[in-house]
Amino acid sequence: MDPRVHDHAATLVDHCTAVGAGDDVLVKAPAAAEDLVVALYELLGERGARPKTTLLSPRAGRAYARAMDAADFCTKAHALAEMEATDVVIMVQGATNTAETTDVAPEKGRASSRANQPVLQTRLESTDWVITQHPTPADAQAAGLSTDAWTDFVYDAVNRDWVAQRERQQRVVERLDAASEARLVAGDDTDLTLSLDGMAACSDHAQENLPGGEVFTSPVVDSVEGEVTFDLPVVRRGRELEDVHLVFEDGVVVDHDAARNADLLASVLETDAGARRVGELGIGMNRGIDRVSRTLLFDEKMGGTVHLALGNAIEAAVPEAREFNESAVHVDLLVDVRTDARLEVDGEVLLRDGSFWFEA
Amino acid sequence: MDPRVHDHAATLVDHCTAVGAGDDVLVKAPAAAEDLVVALYELLGERGARPKTTLLSPRAGRAYARAMDAADFCTKAHALAEMEATDVVIMVQGATNTAETTDVAPEKGRASSRANQPVLQTRLESTDWVITQHPTPADAQAAGLSTDAWTDFVYDAVNRDWVAQRERQQRVVERLDAASEARLVAGDDTDLTLSLDGMAACSDHAQENLPGGEVFTSPVVDSVEGEVTFDLPVVRRGRELEDVHLVFEDGVVVDHDAARNADLLASVLETDAGARRVGELGIGMNRGIDRVSRTLLFDEKMGGTVHLALGNAIEAAVPEAREFNESAVHVDLLVDVRTDARLEVDGEVLLRDGSFWFEA
Repeated sequence: MDPRVHDHAATLVDHCTAVGAGDDVLVKAPAAAEDLVVALYELLGERGARPKTTLLSPRAGRAYARAMDAADFCTKAHALAEMEATDVVIMVQGATNTAETTDVAPEKGRASSRANQPVLQTRLESTDWVITQHPTPADAQAAGLSTDAWTDFVYDAVNRDWVAQRERQQRVVERLDAASEARLVAGDDTDLTLSLDGMAACSDHAQENLPGGEVFTSPVVDSVEGEVTFDLPVVRRGRELEDVHLVFEDGVVVDHDAARNADLLASVLETDAGARRVGELGIGMNRGIDRVSRTLLFDEKMGGTVHLALGNAIEAAVPEAREFNESAVHVDLLVDVRTDARLEVDGEVLLRDGSFWFEA
Repeated sequence: MDPRVHDHAATLVDHCTAVGAGDDVLVKAPAAAEDLVVALYELLGERGARPKTTLLSPRAGRAYARAMDAADFCTKAHALAEMEATDVVIMVQGATNTAETTDVAPEKGRASSRANQPVLQTRLESTDWVITQHPTPADAQAAGLSTDAWTDFVYDAVNRDWVAQRERQQRVVERLDAASEARLVAGDDTDLTLSLDGMAACSDHAQENLPGGEVFTSPVVDSVEGEVTFDLPVVRRGRELEDVHLVFEDGVVVDHDAARNADLLASVLETDAGARRVGELGIGMNRGIDRVSRTLLFDEKMGGTVHLALGNAIEAAVPEAREFNESAVHVDLLVDVRTDARLEVDGEVLLRDGSFWFEA
């Protein structure tokens, strides 16, 4: 087995989660990730933990959803009971065919998500969980890479010195926490200001996502002013949004366009009132990720990028009693800040041309 | 997908178990059986049931067991909670490498089984369960067959008219139930008598095993007299027992030999006092199975065979207050009765040269 699989497993068990003796560990993984499951079981055996694995099969899920009446989806009692007795959850993504569920009616997907809500709540509230990625040929194909290049890409992103990464991110968190205002300037068509006054900055150093490598906060809801062009592509419902351009006044999108799939952008903005406002400002800090892969788990952590999300705010970033932007959507859009770009806080450079102030 | 996979799934859902709307169904399957999982999910969606799947991975199980201290194996709380909330369990066998766990110390396997005992008890007592087989290249290899020939073999055995099979087996059950004594005669070196007085005969028509196709009972413990040669091979701990010859007096093995692995036979007989006595008399009645495959799920159902098990008796066959042969082992051994052989009950032919009295 590729030795990087063992390193990946060790990061999951010892850094992302803190598995101890006697812990009931639930692994959720597709068949294509069996190597990682094997490596995890070896470590979990050494730790004296108690693993079991749920097979994630989009093919089976598709067959079930197509055969099922949307009205009949209901919480699975055995899945809920299992989650209630689980201490640690390790979720592994890895496709065999990224288009597997394209012929499932969207209302079936929504009905399934609603039915699963109690299981999800239980995981979020009462387990130590992490989501990660195992490299597969299908995901390589979706990223436009050879399988070996994708495999290198995944392990460069996940097998890092996460203690050093945490320290580096903490410096950015402290600057953002103290800041009243942020300004993003890039090229000729991005100059945006956002108030961060009183908002909390958070660090994702691979506690819940592996790869991690992101610092994020939420702007004051009505404070966003100016224009921004998102020059890196993102995939939404299987379609690519390219060169999205947004103009904000008093926190609300007043003009919008996209070089590709502008209708999809419009439908996002029409979801609800919150979808026209910014719920998140994020800074990608994982230098192991040097290109977009159309996989959000990676793209939003990419070093030298800043992202804004239209829609629902980040709960941890918004203090109680402050206005919280609510929406049914949360759509991340990315700006490349590696060249001809800067992010300022309170008039001082935080990030210029891909380097933070302490790296200049 | 091979249409026989859909037939197999339909038999599992509609005959072996009785899945209804709202039932929580637990599928346990290896990655190699994903086709069958997909077919099951389609049917379970049509029925409005709620499936989830546990990945069976002997590779992961091996890695875990080797890394784990035997003393640390303990019941998995999440597995037990899941089983307690489960209505129907469909277990699927199908190897990727039948030798996958050959380098796991036997005491680890025993520790794991002991730890899993409460989960097993819950399945047996409070769920509707079935064990079946999905064809894989590794199992084909173990049977000495091409993958396509093995696939045909599996579907010939499982996709049958189980209602007709049940009626055919019921006739044999009634004869055995009423019988006081059975006598098995085959070739020159098999002539054995067993008392069935008061014992109950049972029919396996694919309620808990698919393939099914067996009628079985337990003999009166000290009643077995005579000699028997088991001329079909069986595999025990990865080694083949061939042409086992046993001589019984007062129900106990007094002489034994085997053409291959006689030492293994001796070690079975030395396990405990019950291992030298017969716990089961079984009659294979599945005519879709026409050769031994070294897979017990199939071999003991093979049409034209009779088997005896050394060791633990069958609970359902022994009335309360009757002596029950207890042992840590239950080793099935097969006699080919397709030619030059007969099984009599109370002096009348039940089976001669592979045909039952009602087929003569």
